[in-house]
Amino acid sequence: MSDYKAPVKDMLFALRHLAQYESNSALPGYADADFETAKAIVEECAKLCETVVAPLNPIGDKNPSTWSHGEVTTPPGFKEAYRQYAESGWQSLQHPAEFGGQAMPKTLATVCMEIVNSANLSFALCPLLTDGATEALLTAASAEVKQRYLPKMISGEWTGSMNLTEPQAGSDLELVRTRAEPQPDGSYRIFGTKIFITYGEHDMADNIVHLVLARVPSAPPGVKGISLFVVPKYLVNDDGSIGARNDVHCVSIEHKLGIKASPTAVLQYGDHGGAIGYIVGEENRGLEYMFVMMNAARFAVGVQGIAVAERAYQQAVGYARERVQSRPVDGSSPKAVPIIQHPDVKRMLMTMRALTEGCRGLAYSAAALFDSMHGDPDEEARCRSQRRYEFLVPLIKGFATEMSVEVASLGIQVHGGMGFIEETGAAQHLRDARILTIYEGTTAI
Amino acid sequence: MSDYKAPVKDMLFALRHLAQYESNSALPGYADADFETAKAIVEECAKLCETVVAPLNPIGDKNPSTWSHGEVTTPPGFKEAYRQYAESGWQSLQHPAEFGGQAMPKTLATVCMEIVNSANLSFALCPLLTDGATEALLTAASAEVKQRYLPKMISGEWTGSMNLTEPQAGSDLELVRTRAEPQPDGSYRIFGTKIFITYGEHDMADNIVHLVLARVPSAPPGVKGISLFVVPKYLVNDDGSIGARNDVHCVSIEHKLGIKASPTAVLQYGDHGGAIGYIVGEENRGLEYMFVMMNAARFAVGVQGIAVAERAYQQAVGYARERVQSRPVDGSSPKAVPIIQHPDVKRMLMTMRALTEGCRGLAYSAAALFDSMHGDPDEEARCRSQRRYEFLVPLIKGFATEMSVEVASLGIQVHGGMGFIEETGAAQHLRDARILTIYEGTTAI
Repeated sequence: MSDYKAPVKDMLFALRHLAQYESNSALPGYADADFETAKAIVEECAKLCETVVAPLNPIGDKNPSTWSHGEVTTPPGFKEAYRQYAESGWQSLQHPAEFGGQAMPKTLATVCMEIVNSANLSFALCPLLTDGATEALLTAASAEVKQRYLPKMISGEWTGSMNLTEPQAGSDLELVRTRAEPQPDGSYRIFGTKIFITYGEHDMADNIVHLVLARVPSAPPGVKGISLFVVPKYLVNDDGSIGARNDVHCVSIEHKLGIKASPTAVLQYGDHGGAIGYIVGEENRGLEYMFVMMNAARFAVGVQGIAVAERAYQQAVGYARERVQSRPVDGSSPKAVPIIQHPDVKRMLMTMRALTEGCRGLAYSAAALFDSMHGDPDEEARCRSQRRYEFLVPLIKGFATEMSVEVASLGIQVHGGMGFIEETGAAQHLRDARILTIYEGTTAI
Repeated sequence: MSDYKAPVKDMLFALRHLAQYESNSALPGYADADFETAKAIVEECAKLCETVVAPLNPIGDKNPSTWSHGEVTTPPGFKEAYRQYAESGWQSLQHPAEFGGQAMPKTLATVCMEIVNSANLSFALCPLLTDGATEALLTAASAEVKQRYLPKMISGEWTGSMNLTEPQAGSDLELVRTRAEPQPDGSYRIFGTKIFITYGEHDMADNIVHLVLARVPSAPPGVKGISLFVVPKYLVNDDGSIGARNDVHCVSIEHKLGIKASPTAVLQYGDHGGAIGYIVGEENRGLEYMFVMMNAARFAVGVQGIAVAERAYQQAVGYARERVQSRPVDGSSPKAVPIIQHPDVKRMLMTMRALTEGCRGLAYSAAALFDSMHGDPDEEARCRSQRRYEFLVPLIKGFATEMSVEVASLGIQVHGGMGFIEETGAAQHLRDARILTIYEGTTAI
């Protein structure tokens, strides 16, 4: 099992020279985020992830989350690690100061996101989904909903989930059937079944804030009749304290090829009278808001591809340096040498590295465009950045995830027979990576 | 879970029109193997494999072989299925009549080999390794060794294994350390550890005939000092009955990414005085004989790639016909349609099919060259066929196995999120296929 060591030097190179971080952090609002600060933050993130989060990666793979009577238990160590992650402020890094965030540039947050995903893809999905839900609320929720949920989500005390998929509605959200019935007090009662809900139930936080697509009775058919609701696992009292258990229950979790530590829940809404939900924004505009979340999540999944590719590369290069087998083809040694000296092994490793670093440069650059499209004082510059960012997100999602499957598979190949043995750890990266071209929109979408 | 149905029509097309089976079966010695007979044999093989062997594929994946106190228990149903396979004569199909075989052309045997591997890659490894060991003994063993072992191996009562790899010696057989000490009676005592021994221990047959690479004390260093030995699990009495337990013991089996039903053994030779072995051919020529076996096995592994790709394709096309999602892009229907109608799903399925069928045509044609190189009365034709066959084997091994990983991965992609759920069955094909580019010589070898 190779350890993970964040490639801080490479990351800072990409941040400074490819993403032009210094012109980016000069934008108004990022006064506290100069390059030296960014460097210190990346190093701090690396330290926590290398020592606390990364060692849980094989543990989580061997001890997947388990379900019993509606409760999900995450693998040993996950709860404590998430507490530490949240308490150190990593969940709040890129979110607005208004709700307790640190308001750092997304460019910098992307580096940290890569690190936590390299350390442990399954673990990192919890912050990732919470970030997505946070974005959607920031975009569309009422001031009251924002105030009630965002501070705790940004602090990491509560987590978020995205509830789109239903058994008959995967890529095709038109087929969503979950119902939302308006109540006299302005709330709704939600009824339906959602599947494939990542961290839809777990034991790592005090509350889970589900964002749920559903139809109100008056909704037009098709995608223009879908609304977005906040449905908390526990209702939240006016003073912000945890209230009654809501009528949303986890009826099972999936048995998956990879990312086994991350619970993938089937959630049942409203079997006991109706789950209480609150509209986000306006009725029938849910898909629009959900795409804010989806776009953030799709970018993040691209970064996951880079992250798992980096981890697979580190594992492979570590093995190739140690494994002694066969004399060099150029006759330079009469004895067998570490396989890293053999041309084809080098070719595989360099392919892995080139693909990973290329995608990293692209992703960090796209994140810089995101910061520019939000923070540039010049409107034309903002629009230009937005167009380029929106063009790049599907490319990053598509290419970096397909790339990660290829790189993780090459990682196994470098190990030879040892790569096929689960204890080696190389196979987990392929199993984990294999979801990335599918979730948050398949490559073809 | 989709069932497997042998694509008999496609197979017979490739057999007749690509491998030119009819000119092949006209070779002397194949009088009983005309095309109609071949067709009947393929259909019979399909029937057994579809009904008995294929249903064990997911069962074996969920219930891997287990080890306890040196004994290996294969998954439920494997022992009975192998008995049926052997008793119906499938193990003897391509082997010489002299030792009880049916002496059918390799071209025909290749079709049957594809079928059993599609049905169950893990199961099929047992016949595959036995075939390899049989080839090596046929090539190099003394008349006495042949007479003692071959009839029972060809009947399927006993199975074979190939013992090359040691912890320090994988691709690099120069590093083999297992020792063989000559005894006054002409036998040898074998001492050493072999790893990654497929079906090196199991409960499906009465005896296991290990073919083992080892060094005699006088051996020169390097690959020219390696000899090949027969080391049976149980010694064989002069009357052919099973004798004493030999000093070869399975100390563990591996926990693998795929082909989980197939036990991958660590075998310890000689910890209790020395395992009794018998030389195959001459001392120090072991590698040469082993390459006979390796070449047969490498070709067979290429066929495994085709087989698992075919199975992954059938699984994916079955799902794509049933899964309804999204309206057609050409506006031809106002309702969602089966995903097989969507262009990108079609593209994936057609890619899978084209790759599989192309490799099938290549493999069957190569098998025809094998028959020609052994059976053509014209020496020049034999030599020409041999050169072409030897040129094609590494191509088939390399390309068809890399292809199978790609195709199995596409098969998951066609399923979307369901592909990542283990119960669907698509993921097993990728996990199983992933070994194929590694064992019997990695792609780069």
